[in-house]
Amino acid sequence: MSIDKLYESVKDKGPVCVGLDPNLQHIPEIFDNYSSIEDKLFFYNKAIIDSTYDLTACYKPQLAYYEALGIDGLKALKRTNEYIRNKGGLIINDAKRGDISTTASAYARAFFEGDLEGDILTLSPYMGLDSIEPYLEYIDSKDKGVFVIIKTSNKGSADFEEIDVNGEPLYAIVGKKIVNMNGNSVGKHGYRKIGFVIGATNKKENEGEYIRNLFKDTFFLIPGYGAQGGAAKDVMGLLVDGNGGVVNSSRGIIRAFEKSEKDFDIATREAVIKMREDFYVGL
Amino acid sequence: MSIDKLYESVKDKGPVCVGLDPNLQHIPEIFDNYSSIEDKLFFYNKAIIDSTYDLTACYKPQLAYYEALGIDGLKALKRTNEYIRNKGGLIINDAKRGDISTTASAYARAFFEGDLEGDILTLSPYMGLDSIEPYLEYIDSKDKGVFVIIKTSNKGSADFEEIDVNGEPLYAIVGKKIVNMNGNSVGKHGYRKIGFVIGATNKKENEGEYIRNLFKDTFFLIPGYGAQGGAAKDVMGLLVDGNGGVVNSSRGIIRAFEKSEKDFDIATREAVIKMREDFYVGL
Repeated sequence: MSIDKLYESVKDKGPVCVGLDPNLQHIPEIFDNYSSIEDKLFFYNKAIIDSTYDLTACYKPQLAYYEALGIDGLKALKRTNEYIRNKGGLIINDAKRGDISTTASAYARAFFEGDLEGDILTLSPYMGLDSIEPYLEYIDSKDKGVFVIIKTSNKGSADFEEIDVNGEPLYAIVGKKIVNMNGNSVGKHGYRKIGFVIGATNKKENEGEYIRNLFKDTFFLIPGYGAQGGAAKDVMGLLVDGNGGVVNSSRGIIRAFEKSEKDFDIATREAVIKMREDFYVGL
Repeated sequence: MSIDKLYESVKDKGPVCVGLDPNLQHIPEIFDNYSSIEDKLFFYNKAIIDSTYDLTACYKPQLAYYEALGIDGLKALKRTNEYIRNKGGLIINDAKRGDISTTASAYARAFFEGDLEGDILTLSPYMGLDSIEPYLEYIDSKDKGVFVIIKTSNKGSADFEEIDVNGEPLYAIVGKKIVNMNGNSVGKHGYRKIGFVIGATNKKENEGEYIRNLFKDTFFLIPGYGAQGGAAKDVMGLLVDGNGGVVNSSRGIIRAFEKSEKDFDIATREAVIKMREDFYVGL
């Protein structure tokens, strides 16, 4: 299962996950000489990967940014994922898919094999447990993983995720039902097969500790650090001795060059180093 | 807004929505002479569209089946959507996307313009209202639409969608908050900009009437008819005089030929005619 591999990657390299969210308006000029969007995106991603690989637990392409560029964008994602895989890196395809039965199995084929293959896929739980079950056989047979969205860091997380249901927020109920699903067993490093997306927020005191305590043996993908307002102290409560989760930053890393006088690759690498120092225990 | 166009299409042609969910194992032999997956999928979809166009309110490609076939599959979707658009038909890209802010805007670009352009996109509401808001400006400026998943017909809909929150199912709360969003105004045929995905179920007596009464002026995309167990009487309560919604069938139409001795195009057309007779008032 990929959660075990991710745990080992965090142990070796720290918990930073670099978000690969290409936006044509924020790609540095040095990539202007590529004539196709596909090449431009791929070589931009390759430069980010090459300058951060030894300091990064995993890479997280956000599907929306590739789909927004159509077939060219998706071809660039294919090459990016192949490049990471060939280097031995781990890929979280951040697609937040949510559907059932044969449709869910089709999404598993889309993201666990073939052109867009990655190691882990993000999922949305709204339709129920049968929108998550079909992925379990792929986690076992192909050594893959999923992160299900449970509690995010956006303003709108209050609308539904935090609705009070008999004294508990909805996200606690969603998470506990998933923790207890058949087949969601614990791997060799003490974490379950199904991971959760838990945003780093600064809205409530000790919310990180509350959530970690609810889901003690679940591995977290933690977005929201940096550009979205989450600070190191909000993340620390969600981690366990610097592991048990990966912390994603996209703009904070891939657009660090815009605030730096250094070359793109150096500015990118330094942003990862700085972020890593924020919360990597045992550096 | 696309909901107005959909209302008019239902008025002209009846409420059948044909689901374009290609599965290579269930494509008839007559398409075996195409050497590429892209061609095979496109000409298969084209045959379905050509044999049903005058009887069909809209077409709904399910993204998972195209993504499962990688770049080839997505190229076939591009050609399929172009073909429907050039014929003047309406396209619901069933992608169930759910993300916020600039990511949501990227999804809007992906599905409301460019290679995969359709008229309407399905969305998942779990992350909150700010995962729906970014689409509103595209609905206005580009004459597009969205259907948000509210209540589905799968077994797992009981897990979260139907959780009791102070005497109401969660899906009623989610739906009412979306109905009341700023900008979700009523169009010229009496239906709001934001439509809902409401599955046809036979689990509870009069559930269709209950849901229609909750969301009187919302247009529905109704999956679950036929292969998923929903019957005509379960659909009728969700419609309003044969309009106010489109009823999707995928396997029941595109795999009708497997149970027929007639040619593929005739078997496909007859399946639409039969389904249409089930609930088209004023045929």
